[in-house]
Amino acid sequence: MSKEFGPDYVRAIAPYQAGKPISEVAREFGLDEANIVKLASNENPFGVPDSAKDAMAAAAAELGRYPDANGFELKAALSKRYDVPADWITLGNGSNDILELAAKAFVQRSEGIVYAQYSFAVYALATQGLGARHIVVPAKDYGHDLDAMLAAIDGETKLVFIANPNNPTGTFIPGPQIEAFLKKVPANVVVVLDEAYNEYLKPEDQYDSAAWVKQYPNLLVSRTFSKAYGLAGLRVGFSIAQPKLTDLMNRVRQPFNVNSLAQAAAIAALNDAAFLEKGARNNAAGYEQFVEAFEQMNLEYVPSYGNFVLVKVGEDPQAGARVNLALLKQGVIVRPVGNYGLPEWLRISIGLPQENAVLIAALQKALGEA
Amino acid sequence: MSKEFGPDYVRAIAPYQAGKPISEVAREFGLDEANIVKLASNENPFGVPDSAKDAMAAAAAELGRYPDANGFELKAALSKRYDVPADWITLGNGSNDILELAAKAFVQRSEGIVYAQYSFAVYALATQGLGARHIVVPAKDYGHDLDAMLAAIDGETKLVFIANPNNPTGTFIPGPQIEAFLKKVPANVVVVLDEAYNEYLKPEDQYDSAAWVKQYPNLLVSRTFSKAYGLAGLRVGFSIAQPKLTDLMNRVRQPFNVNSLAQAAAIAALNDAAFLEKGARNNAAGYEQFVEAFEQMNLEYVPSYGNFVLVKVGEDPQAGARVNLALLKQGVIVRPVGNYGLPEWLRISIGLPQENAVLIAALQKALGEA
Repeated sequence: MSKEFGPDYVRAIAPYQAGKPISEVAREFGLDEANIVKLASNENPFGVPDSAKDAMAAAAAELGRYPDANGFELKAALSKRYDVPADWITLGNGSNDILELAAKAFVQRSEGIVYAQYSFAVYALATQGLGARHIVVPAKDYGHDLDAMLAAIDGETKLVFIANPNNPTGTFIPGPQIEAFLKKVPANVVVVLDEAYNEYLKPEDQYDSAAWVKQYPNLLVSRTFSKAYGLAGLRVGFSIAQPKLTDLMNRVRQPFNVNSLAQAAAIAALNDAAFLEKGARNNAAGYEQFVEAFEQMNLEYVPSYGNFVLVKVGEDPQAGARVNLALLKQGVIVRPVGNYGLPEWLRISIGLPQENAVLIAALQKALGEA
Repeated sequence: MSKEFGPDYVRAIAPYQAGKPISEVAREFGLDEANIVKLASNENPFGVPDSAKDAMAAAAAELGRYPDANGFELKAALSKRYDVPADWITLGNGSNDILELAAKAFVQRSEGIVYAQYSFAVYALATQGLGARHIVVPAKDYGHDLDAMLAAIDGETKLVFIANPNNPTGTFIPGPQIEAFLKKVPANVVVVLDEAYNEYLKPEDQYDSAAWVKQYPNLLVSRTFSKAYGLAGLRVGFSIAQPKLTDLMNRVRQPFNVNSLAQAAAIAALNDAAFLEKGARNNAAGYEQFVEAFEQMNLEYVPSYGNFVLVKVGEDPQAGARVNLALLKQGVIVRPVGNYGLPEWLRISIGLPQENAVLIAALQKALGEA
């Protein structure tokens, strides 16, 4: 009789390290919540669109009811937007849920999952949670090395995670390179293309991944409402894939995984072009604000296509933790990325101009002290 | 190379059959939503408590932020209420999430899970989703046969699901019998005591399961805010267990599994004793209303301790489906339970007195036609 509860691979999971909530930092450092700037979780600095607030208010009366397990109205809206049948869509409790569902639906213990070094932490968690084999492909210039990822696929590989743009590094793979990769991937290997930050891409970088889904039965595109759409606190994401994949996603999905308010708010946000545009403008300006400051401070950074920038704050492996603590004491929350194997770096979300200015001043002070 | 995507056990999952949403029935049967009565999903007929609505409004401003991954404030409130340390609590996206997390945290492929015939469908889904072995113990009088469940535990059994009260049958196991069972279960087998309907128990039937958790390191108590607390659409449940189990639950949990509004609303609802009391009174009266009607109609029913009643609407295996369709045409949604192996029965949730009266009249009409 085993003395321990749980499978060995579950006991080996290192839980996800979330960004510190403002309330926790206020408690820990004795600060006033109102004075804290959080640029740690790649959230939308404009918060929830007003259109989504109105939609939620309308839906609030029925919250004693279970959510629609089939997400009829949200799927209809997404189907129209992406020009795919509604039954190609799976809704998730954030795209985190989509990523976990894909791993569970397509992979079992000992089979392999390919993902890139420095890519989103949930890929490793989803792999470990199944007792599956991690096939981690070294990054190239902090981004995905698609040729090496293709070469890493073996006979027992069932899934490849690709993040584009990638978090936490902000790197981007041009559409034609992804399509070339899709052409070469074995047909029985599912490619999960995680586009959580897609809406921040400039028009000239955009590509039509929903159209690829029609061509590649092994492609699953993952999207979220947590970033550009400003609904992180509500939890809603979705995937688009052909019915063979979607059917399996639905088999492992918890029937009421997406709450009613999230479904209502997502429909409104999806149609709020003005909110997206305002966010994109703010993000582009904030990126310039950061880049200018980092260059003035002589800090190395990775050019970013997302709503955050990875910046190197020192040369020693304690640099990230040290500067992070100095920022926290000043009431600024960013994301240390030592758990990604990047202990000299910090990931900083792009906020409102004034929040960015506070970060820049605090970083200058922290680096002066450090 | 396999031609099929996904593990064999995933392809064999029969997805959960949710209660039909009102909007779907309106579409399908050409009815006006306002005239539809839904007594299908054991929801709270009073909807969301006003206290929870206020708490949600206060939390709405911050919805662009990710939820607190550690659920600090809700866990603090639960810790106080149940007199257990906050780190014994795991929050779930409904108790469905808790049940799935428990299976994933404690069981792997080929290991066994024991549960009772006619018990909650998610136990079978969670078992199948892992490729684990189903050890289904025949029911006794539509309820759990604890002696037989104990005897069914073998060397490869890792988890036992017990629902008390049970859904969909409404049966109840008195506290002392559960405690006797806990004393005899092998220490390495996790017992998940699913108390989704606990708040509907009369004071004389209540027992202190949180106190048992202190005594039994292999006990995990699961609760929900979807029933008596009226928050089904928001998705929030929780479990209480000692740190050895809770630690593993947290390793397999998605970090942002519980949305911000659900966390805020749950704290308010937990402290809204008046709302719970109103619900309990309504439920007791509605149960009498149903029982009286079923007896007048000479219908067999299973005495229920929950907010629903299982009633036999015919002797042939098409009876449930036939009467269900006749009810749907009249705009009344209840739950057929053929997927539970109970094709002659329907599960009917207790609603407001007027809703119950509509159901009774529609059932009389349906049975007259059938």
